[in-house]
Amino acid sequence: MIEHLSIIGVGLIGGSLALALKRAGYCRRITGVGRDAGRLQGAVAAGVVDDYETDFAAGVADADMVLVAVPLNSCSDVFEKIRGRLKAGAVLTDASSAKGSVIDDVRRVFGKVPANFVPGHPIAGTEKSGYESAFAELFQRRRVILTPVAGTDAGAVARVRAMWEAAGAIVEITDVAHHDRVLASTSHLPHMLAFGLVDSLAKQDDVEEIFRFAAGGFRDFTRIAGADPVMWRDICLRNRDAILQAMKLYQADLNELQAAIEAGDADTLLKIFGRAKAARDKFNG
Amino acid sequence: MIEHLSIIGVGLIGGSLALALKRAGYCRRITGVGRDAGRLQGAVAAGVVDDYETDFAAGVADADMVLVAVPLNSCSDVFEKIRGRLKAGAVLTDASSAKGSVIDDVRRVFGKVPANFVPGHPIAGTEKSGYESAFAELFQRRRVILTPVAGTDAGAVARVRAMWEAAGAIVEITDVAHHDRVLASTSHLPHMLAFGLVDSLAKQDDVEEIFRFAAGGFRDFTRIAGADPVMWRDICLRNRDAILQAMKLYQADLNELQAAIEAGDADTLLKIFGRAKAARDKFNG
Repeated sequence: MIEHLSIIGVGLIGGSLALALKRAGYCRRITGVGRDAGRLQGAVAAGVVDDYETDFAAGVADADMVLVAVPLNSCSDVFEKIRGRLKAGAVLTDASSAKGSVIDDVRRVFGKVPANFVPGHPIAGTEKSGYESAFAELFQRRRVILTPVAGTDAGAVARVRAMWEAAGAIVEITDVAHHDRVLASTSHLPHMLAFGLVDSLAKQDDVEEIFRFAAGGFRDFTRIAGADPVMWRDICLRNRDAILQAMKLYQADLNELQAAIEAGDADTLLKIFGRAKAARDKFNG
Repeated sequence: MIEHLSIIGVGLIGGSLALALKRAGYCRRITGVGRDAGRLQGAVAAGVVDDYETDFAAGVADADMVLVAVPLNSCSDVFEKIRGRLKAGAVLTDASSAKGSVIDDVRRVFGKVPANFVPGHPIAGTEKSGYESAFAELFQRRRVILTPVAGTDAGAVARVRAMWEAAGAIVEITDVAHHDRVLASTSHLPHMLAFGLVDSLAKQDDVEEIFRFAAGGFRDFTRIAGADPVMWRDICLRNRDAILQAMKLYQADLNELQAAIEAGDADTLLKIFGRAKAARDKFNG
């Protein structure tokens, strides 16, 4: 149970957590914090948060738990604004997709990683953004990864875990670099491939026909290319090395596939497609 | 209205067409033709087709319309088996994903492209296969592309068009090379990227964790990697040049994206992602 939760950034993630925790009766009060009063008024009117505050320091002063759910490049600025403003015993956590970057920001702004800061990442989302797209079920049975560092308070980790569990999520703990590497492969790389494909096709002369002839498989494949460009620019900038490594590994494998097509190597093609299908069927059953 | 339709290859496509035409009351009799009596008996028992025949020549002898819906590498063999066996006035069509290849097969087997052969491609499907996955709504509002050649009988084209329209599809006519190039971009290339990604990840040490940490976006993106390996091997062999061209064009664009990530070029990243999102939102709205 959280007496007072402040969510900085009431978008798809922040808004959905607010809705889930309200439904669970897990928070007495949820404050939305951000720069845009009009948007925040909308979130209050929509029943996503209880009240709002555009002064970040004031918005976190009374909170027992503060969630930062803004694009990665904005995290540092948010930390500057709330530094020294949390009350004693309050827990600070975040929801961003690249943990090494956020921990670096925290270390720079606070001088060290405070014991009450719990880096977190809910692996959930849709291609939509904004509180209008938020829904209480977003985290149901989804994983939330926490990446505490040496010195993170175990009690703070337990409180963040309990909050996400109240929202329906399955919480796991892993180390920062491992998180960033795995997410580069399973989320950041596929987004690059989908953004790249849609942009590549959109540049072609017969773009209208190309998209008209696209079937359901194409729509599924490219759904993630509808995601927020600013969020993804920031992820690229902030998980750069792991993404580049994943892209290079992938391109080497793709080149092998291309060579097999070029050579008309039926056996290798069947082997690659068969292995991929087996892996997909096993894991996504 | 078709008196007697024979479908060679009662899988997802052939089976779904049979179900759609039955529901529409468009065929008096539908015969399933194939090699495997057990599978065909199953299709009859499931109510997908009315009867079956494993002797291909006998299976098409009485039909007014014959649809060939088998993997691309099997088309040539099917054409051999039914050459000279269709009754006068019957129409022959197919449902395969690479039209140039099928037309070459037809020309080789029949000595020329017969006026009653209408090359066709329903742009619909799921990652599943087999008549068990067939459903009557598969072609609803989906596109079917016909690629008649010089000499194709206009009446035959009209009858194939009417059949697909009875199944709920929107029929378009385009030229062979154009079809093969566009499909290489919108269908064959995405399948290569998805098969390639899943296989690439499946080879990594922490494969269990990689797939456990994968979110909905990854599942959507890789759904097509669950498709039939034999069908896709054949497409790679039979639409080789267009697929290679699409892969090379794509990789050049992906390399630009990779260079922008490497350089930390925020403006270019935002431009690429913004263009892709705009195109996707416009076309897939």
